Amino acid sequence: MIRLAEELWPLNRSLSGEGTRESLRILKRELSELEIKIFESGSQVFDWVVPPEWNCYEAYILSPDGTKICDFSNNNLHLVGYSEPIEASVTLAELQEHLFSLPEQPNAIPYVTSYYKRAWGFCLAEQDRRLLVEGEYKVIIRSEFSNSGLDYGELVIPGISDREVFFSTYLCHPSMANNELSGPVLAVQLAKHLQKMDNFYTYRFIFIPETIGSIAYMASNLSDMKKNMLAGFVLTCLGDERAYSYIPSRKGGTIADLAALSTFQELGISPILYGWQDRGSDERQYCSPGADLPVCSVTRSKYGTYPEYHTSLDTLGEVVTIDGLQGSFDFYLALISKLETQRFPRMTVVGEPQLGKRGLYPNTSLKGAYADVRPVMDFISMLDGTIETEDAIKKSGVDKAHGHAFLNRLIEEELVEN
Amino acid sequence: MIRLAEELWPLNRSLSGEGTRESLRILKRELSELEIKIFESGSQVFDWVVPPEWNCYEAYILSPDGTKICDFSNNNLHLVGYSEPIEASVTLAELQEHLFSLPEQPNAIPYVTSYYKRAWGFCLAEQDRRLLVEGEYKVIIRSEFSNSGLDYGELVIPGISDREVFFSTYLCHPSMANNELSGPVLAVQLAKHLQKMDNFYTYRFIFIPETIGSIAYMASNLSDMKKNMLAGFVLTCLGDERAYSYIPSRKGGTIADLAALSTFQELGISPILYGWQDRGSDERQYCSPGADLPVCSVTRSKYGTYPEYHTSLDTLGEVVTIDGLQGSFDFYLALISKLETQRFPRMTVVGEPQLGKRGLYPNTSLKGAYADVRPVMDFISMLDGTIETEDAIKKSGVDKAHGHAFLNRLIEEELVEN
Amino acid sequence: MIRLAEELWPLNRSLSGEGTRESLRILKRELSELEIKIFESGSQVFDWVVPPEWNCYEAYILSPDGTKICDFSNNNLHLVGYSEPIEASVTLAELQEHLFSLPEQPNAIPYVTSYYKRAWGFCLAEQDRRLLVEGEYKVIIRSEFSNSGLDYGELVIPGISDREVFFSTYLCHPSMANNELSGPVLAVQLAKHLQKMDNFYTYRFIFIPETIGSIAYMASNLSDMKKNMLAGFVLTCLGDERAYSYIPSRKGGTIADLAALSTFQELGISPILYGWQDRGSDERQYCSPGADLPVCSVTRSKYGTYPEYHTSLDTLGEVVTIDGLQGSFDFYLALISKLETQRFPRMTVVGEPQLGKRGLYPNTSLKGAYADVRPVMDFISMLDGTIETEDAIKKSGVDKAHGHAFLNRLIEEELVEN
Repeated sequence: MIRLAEELWPLNRSLSGEGTRESLRILKRELSELEIKIFESGSQVFDWVVPPEWNCYEAYILSPDGTKICDFSNNNLHLVGYSEPIEASVTLAELQEHLFSLPEQPNAIPYVTSYYKRAWGFCLAEQDRRLLVEGEYKVIIRSEFSNSGLDYGELVIPGISDREVFFSTYLCHPSMANNELSGPVLAVQLAKHLQKMDNFYTYRFIFIPETIGSIAYMASNLSDMKKNMLAGFVLTCLGDERAYSYIPSRKGGTIADLAALSTFQELGISPILYGWQDRGSDERQYCSPGADLPVCSVTRSKYGTYPEYHTSLDTLGEVVTIDGLQGSFDFYLALISKLETQRFPRMTVVGEPQLGKRGLYPNTSLKGAYADVRPVMDFISMLDGTIETEDAIKKSGVDKAHGHAFLNRLIEEELVEN
Repeated sequence: MIRLAEELWPLNRSLSGEGTRESLRILKRELSELEIKIFESGSQVFDWVVPPEWNCYEAYILSPDGTKICDFSNNNLHLVGYSEPIEASVTLAELQEHLFSLPEQPNAIPYVTSYYKRAWGFCLAEQDRRLLVEGEYKVIIRSEFSNSGLDYGELVIPGISDREVFFSTYLCHPSMANNELSGPVLAVQLAKHLQKMDNFYTYRFIFIPETIGSIAYMASNLSDMKKNMLAGFVLTCLGDERAYSYIPSRKGGTIADLAALSTFQELGISPILYGWQDRGSDERQYCSPGADLPVCSVTRSKYGTYPEYHTSLDTLGEVVTIDGLQGSFDFYLALISKLETQRFPRMTVVGEPQLGKRGLYPNTSLKGAYADVRPVMDFISMLDGTIETEDAIKKSGVDKAHGHAFLNRLIEEELVEN
Repeated sequence: MIRLAEELWPLNRSLSGEGTRESLRILKRELSELEIKIFESGSQVFDWVVPPEWNCYEAYILSPDGTKICDFSNNNLHLVGYSEPIEASVTLAELQEHLFSLPEQPNAIPYVTSYYKRAWGFCLAEQDRRLLVEGEYKVIIRSEFSNSGLDYGELVIPGISDREVFFSTYLCHPSMANNELSGPVLAVQLAKHLQKMDNFYTYRFIFIPETIGSIAYMASNLSDMKKNMLAGFVLTCLGDERAYSYIPSRKGGTIADLAALSTFQELGISPILYGWQDRGSDERQYCSPGADLPVCSVTRSKYGTYPEYHTSLDTLGEVVTIDGLQGSFDFYLALISKLETQRFPRMTVVGEPQLGKRGLYPNTSLKGAYADVRPVMDFISMLDGTIETEDAIKKSGVDKAHGHAFLNRLIEEELVEN
């Protein structure tokens, strides 16, 4: 995961553009079945319009003494994301209006974007900004907008069931580690793992730009998502080792929420339990009124809560560590393992199925012959789509292994859908 | 209000007829946007048939000694409403079968009608009835039925929202003050007041005949009423100063009920709290199974509970007072003021709206830039149509004024509907 | 009931065939309006296929010494139901694989069937089986399958209401008394009784083969059953006098469950209260997910719980007694009496009905004239289909007899449906 993060690190990612495409190509090298798709610029998606593609080839400022500063080729964060092209001479006072720094973190270059309003700007460390002298500054930004669209990646790992466990992560943040290379590299690692497994559920991973991506994705897929999504998770801020955090779905109590909370319990981890008001990533869209998908998020230190957040200090090594990523991987693996054993099955026929013709029920009746099949008959009589399999097993008293084997057979026969 | 009541007082109103039309014309003089409409005689409205129009030009009894008694031109109440025409000589015994008086209230002329069964009759004070002597009485009723219909008035005062606060009152009772001139004159006063205001909600007033009017009105408008009605109130018995009364909707707990009860609390008034079994006016129809509209009623002394009810003693001055009407006006004004600040808003788009393009969200991202918008984002994330705005404001922690301004902006943008 | 049971006893009933048809003819002699219908062989009914008709004309085994044993003409139970035809000589060892007996009940011939898998077999008492000697046995089964179908009987006793009380019982068990001649003979007796009564509800009795019959019946009738069924009961094991038993519907709390439990209470009977996991007859189908009909079962000693169950020991006299059947009859009669006084009425019109034109409301209004009609108006204002009539009567304070008379009138007028 760390190596992949290091490789992705220098690319200039944003909502769109060559750096994003190159990042998706690297992900596709890792996950050959990843499909690279596009949200077309100008599309209306609910209340939003998909913005144009943006690329930047060169960006820097020449100081009065000719020194090159805020060089985009040194650090992507020096340039405000989606800056419009410019080549101009400006005074220091004029320049200041286009500079961003963080007085409280004098050594950090902040991460700034202006996706939806044409503007230009540079970001630099407060300590460097203080050194700027009066004089004429030459500003060069060779950026370009084009009506292509926003590239994104989608990977489906089919399982036995059409019901899906959904992972959404985002690639749009350049040159920051925890937020956000940790989500994509964890997603790759989880996907690689799942591809090697025989899964019951279908797994869907999307690598999208944050906010506009989840909205555009829902605009095309909401009815399928409502039908098929068993549980969904926003993967973000998964690389540090300082904490675990849980951000619930809007109403709480979904299969995703219950899976996350019970996994913490199983692993003996006490996470920081945030509320819906602490949300900040794409659960904002997935859980919005009208969508109300079963999506929550488990992170390490949550976005906005650690000092390096959204600055050049959010680095591999300093913030993101091998142990941090590994802890997240272990958590989601445990959660997946748990979900893989859980079902909310539903009979597809009215009345009992004819189990005898399938060898699942005594064909020759004789008093007492049914004692063996009694518990499984009790078990399947509960399967109305409202009860989790393990609960139905407990309540019916069926042997657990037998219950599961029986259930799988009924699914094969299309008498039950999970 | 008192002056309007005095002007309406002498007109012979009933379910229909010239007196009702003249009353509606007077109301239209006060409220020029009042529309005068008609329920056509003979129409089937749910289980009912709209009766014919009725007019009476002259009605009295000539005593054996030639004295004119029970003269309709002296008091409308002397004639049973919807009396059929007659010109006949009858004995006292025969006459007695057509006379109505109240032994317990010997000086009161009772109010009697026979809308749905052809009959004739006169009403008089018990003390006068006792003076009647044997002999031949001449009975004259020059009344007329015609297949026109029942006139009614409807006034819509459009607000920003299509959701409606509904007021229903009735004009069919002649020459009685509390029940029922108080409702119509209060309705006129409330409507005049609301016409001068910039209202959020749409207000609808209907001046209909009781029972048949509300049934006929629902027969034409029920689906719109179900869609648009936020809260409704039956305006009746609003002129005396003896008490305040609350009659709930059938199931209680509607926005109308909650608004009425919280207005009482706000004003420090302890009303008589009646139950559904104490209902008696058009809430009987509006809350019937199958309609179940959010309609309740706040009155002063409730119909049926004060001695002058449905008699000639229910007069302006004796029962209805300036203070009585003013108290009702103040109550409903307070209730309207309260409702005007209440909303049950609902997002119209899936996902968060794109607030940046509307100047409601920072276009340039920078760490910490969202702290200001955080509470309003929490606020709008709750707007699923099930929570009252003030509750959502409290729970989100947004500044109240800011929350309201923001909400109004979202409504303008059609991102929220109230 | 006992005499009818004695008459039905010797017939070879199974899912189908001449013995079943003959039994249905006998029932039709008792209940001339019984309709005899057929589920056609080969029809797909939900997950099942209706099996062929089966008849057997002769079946026995010739011992090495020429003695005829397991003679079907002596006791139907000697032959496994749906045995395929065979005429063969077999060794004792070969024969043993086709013999069924009960070591724990050495004097009982067990009841065995093989409806859905072609096989043949004989049943005999364990004590007789032990006497079998080595040698050549001649096996004769002259049975026949034909693509006719499964005959069943259906009787509808129309009441005032289209809502139905449903009784389901089964004829497929030959030569056993409690399970199952007690259900059919009780059903006949209940039906005869109900035919003599003026019933409010419609009563439907079906005499079907167990399991496949209820599934096939639902396959054709489920939407009507969902619409019309007020309460349903599976009639089985109703003839012994050892106990009363209650087997609930899957979710409990239906009108059927409440009627059964309150009837026990009324009669001062403490039944054995089984759970859903103890079910075993056609409630398995009627209550399955997707059907969820309001069906429960009240039995005497429940199937599977008494020693003679599914053996030749389940006889008239030994197990089924006159007192046992009478107790069941009395129970269901009390339950029917209770249901007959219960309604869950619903107004069919919006608004109050126009009662005046029907003579149910004063046509001439006069103060105080409505006092008499007030309670009935309260009563009908509750009739939204969610409240039982007696509850509505209590809550409205209407006089009970008056309330019922009034309700019946409204039903006649089609203003209320029950």
